[in-house]
Amino acid sequence: MSGNVMVNGSVKKDYVRPLDFKNGRVDMNHGAGGRAASQLIEELFLKAFDNELLRQGNDGAVFAPPALDAGARLVMATDAHVVSPLFFPGGDVGCLSVHGTVNDLAMSGATPLYLTASFILEEGFPLADLRRVVESMAAASREAGVPIVTGDTKVVERGKGDGVFISTTGLGVVAAGVDIGGANARVGDVVLLSGTIGEHGVAVLSQRESLQFETSIASDTAALHTLVAAMLAAVPGAVRVLRDPTRGGVATTLNEIARQSGAGMVLEEAAIPVLPQVEAACELLGLDPLYIANEGKLLAVCAPEHEAAALAAMRAHPLGAHAARIGVVTADPHHFVQMNTRFGGRRMVDWLSGEQLPRIC
Amino acid sequence: MSGNVMVNGSVKKDYVRPLDFKNGRVDMNHGAGGRAASQLIEELFLKAFDNELLRQGNDGAVFAPPALDAGARLVMATDAHVVSPLFFPGGDVGCLSVHGTVNDLAMSGATPLYLTASFILEEGFPLADLRRVVESMAAASREAGVPIVTGDTKVVERGKGDGVFISTTGLGVVAAGVDIGGANARVGDVVLLSGTIGEHGVAVLSQRESLQFETSIASDTAALHTLVAAMLAAVPGAVRVLRDPTRGGVATTLNEIARQSGAGMVLEEAAIPVLPQVEAACELLGLDPLYIANEGKLLAVCAPEHEAAALAAMRAHPLGAHAARIGVVTADPHHFVQMNTRFGGRRMVDWLSGEQLPRIC
Repeated sequence: MSGNVMVNGSVKKDYVRPLDFKNGRVDMNHGAGGRAASQLIEELFLKAFDNELLRQGNDGAVFAPPALDAGARLVMATDAHVVSPLFFPGGDVGCLSVHGTVNDLAMSGATPLYLTASFILEEGFPLADLRRVVESMAAASREAGVPIVTGDTKVVERGKGDGVFISTTGLGVVAAGVDIGGANARVGDVVLLSGTIGEHGVAVLSQRESLQFETSIASDTAALHTLVAAMLAAVPGAVRVLRDPTRGGVATTLNEIARQSGAGMVLEEAAIPVLPQVEAACELLGLDPLYIANEGKLLAVCAPEHEAAALAAMRAHPLGAHAARIGVVTADPHHFVQMNTRFGGRRMVDWLSGEQLPRIC
Repeated sequence: MSGNVMVNGSVKKDYVRPLDFKNGRVDMNHGAGGRAASQLIEELFLKAFDNELLRQGNDGAVFAPPALDAGARLVMATDAHVVSPLFFPGGDVGCLSVHGTVNDLAMSGATPLYLTASFILEEGFPLADLRRVVESMAAASREAGVPIVTGDTKVVERGKGDGVFISTTGLGVVAAGVDIGGANARVGDVVLLSGTIGEHGVAVLSQRESLQFETSIASDTAALHTLVAAMLAAVPGAVRVLRDPTRGGVATTLNEIARQSGAGMVLEEAAIPVLPQVEAACELLGLDPLYIANEGKLLAVCAPEHEAAALAAMRAHPLGAHAARIGVVTADPHHFVQMNTRFGGRRMVDWLSGEQLPRIC
């Protein structure tokens, strides 16, 4: 972690009382860059994230460049994670901070290589909770195969933060020939969605408001890079846009794509998969699932002749089992996203204009 | 910025009231990923940081890989910036967040290429202050020649943050043959310091406590990569360790290096440059300049036969004008850092064990 050091195996260590992960709390010393900071890094972060690059113990992680074919490119993406509450059904800020940035890389069609993590801790935050978050991050990083190679930790006074904020940044490789971008949708393309929508937002909200639904709803938080890889392998060159509908949900994400591509879209409401318990919860809360954040779903705009193969590849992947074609790209000078409703009408699907759910990721 | 879009030049824009940078404030909508977030990105971040990669408007920035010689490596570094107050003599959180990460890259001997930025804003933060911070960041990024290529913005409720926190992450290239690391110091090496110490910490503290010193003390915040490049060019292979003495100051940084390298150090107090006004302020405040954070200084451990050439290269650079040899690396099984005092004695220079100055960077 930045500016801090590893204990060299051969060096005799001074006796230091180990961190109290049962009753201990973050204090200002943990961010001061001295002994306490060093101890937090060694006993928590290095242990959980353990990998060769992190063990370098320098201000940055130095690594051999990835082998790149001619035409391959690099990609960087970053995300701050301020979800509240920190723990929710199906996940927590730790795994979310890994999935969020891995997914941003994946939405460029990239293979993610490395992550960095910066932590802003609030004084008084229980070390037990911090460890739970860090271990969840470490597990998500291992599962995704994307190591956390360097980091930084700061501490702010009680009442100047909110437990823990985590910013992650990723580096990835986009293979030669892959050209994915929000401006690439063409009239006639199909809009594919990888699965049911709304679980993440509803899970966080239900936890926040201590709502009890009859059926529990878990966040869909997941790393989507292997789903993307399967799609790109199945229909090379056919996927034009990829985006994960997080804040603002499917509605806002599709409006972004429509605007960037200078086109319109028409969706089929009946084709958009929503779990019945999410639909029920949304009805109760007066929310529209189209505007609710997802953390393990993707939207793809795809050449129409490859629709069947793309959907088959998605459905063959555990994270795309409920993939569906939900609409088409149309010529529209206003770049409207419209939707044919279940009742035979057509309505506008506008951008999220206010705040539907704050601090959802 | 993540999940958000550019206005395509050919697209007719809806009429939106422009942001009020005079009296406006950050509200929760600015972090929601909808129209308000998009507007903040377009009217502030894209305008200030303007560059081709940022204009891609996708979840990540995709770029051609840097041309690399055989043996060259990549480096990533990340830092969270939570300095309080946000504005202080000589700088602010904006330029600091650029310098901090550029310097972390430079301390690996790297040429910095790109930065990413993630913002955590507090509801109610004046847009005028945010603009000032962002413009300072943009200026620092331009001056350093390191563009901010992608970013993310989140908003937390009033009382859950503190104005603005900024996490930056950088990517750089380490040339073939350059091998810099905290574990590389050898017995007999010299310890070089690029200039006077303590200004940053004292400047922030004086602002925080509304202290008035007779002579004003400004932060030394600066990007050190061109100084490093000059040193590496002047004495190829001779620089073994580079580290910027930020949190914990020179004392803690040298203890880190001693521990990583499994060696000791002996410093000469008389050789360590401190401005008289910093010395006076430290005396008044009961602080030791050796433990105070710097943001524009570096420590180098260098092969002794190249000391003169290394110092000459440093002194020829505006950021190294007061460079000095401040000590030597010694054989010491305890890895102690000791100091010959001005009065002819010798004392231990220990790690910072507590919090000398919280939220200094």
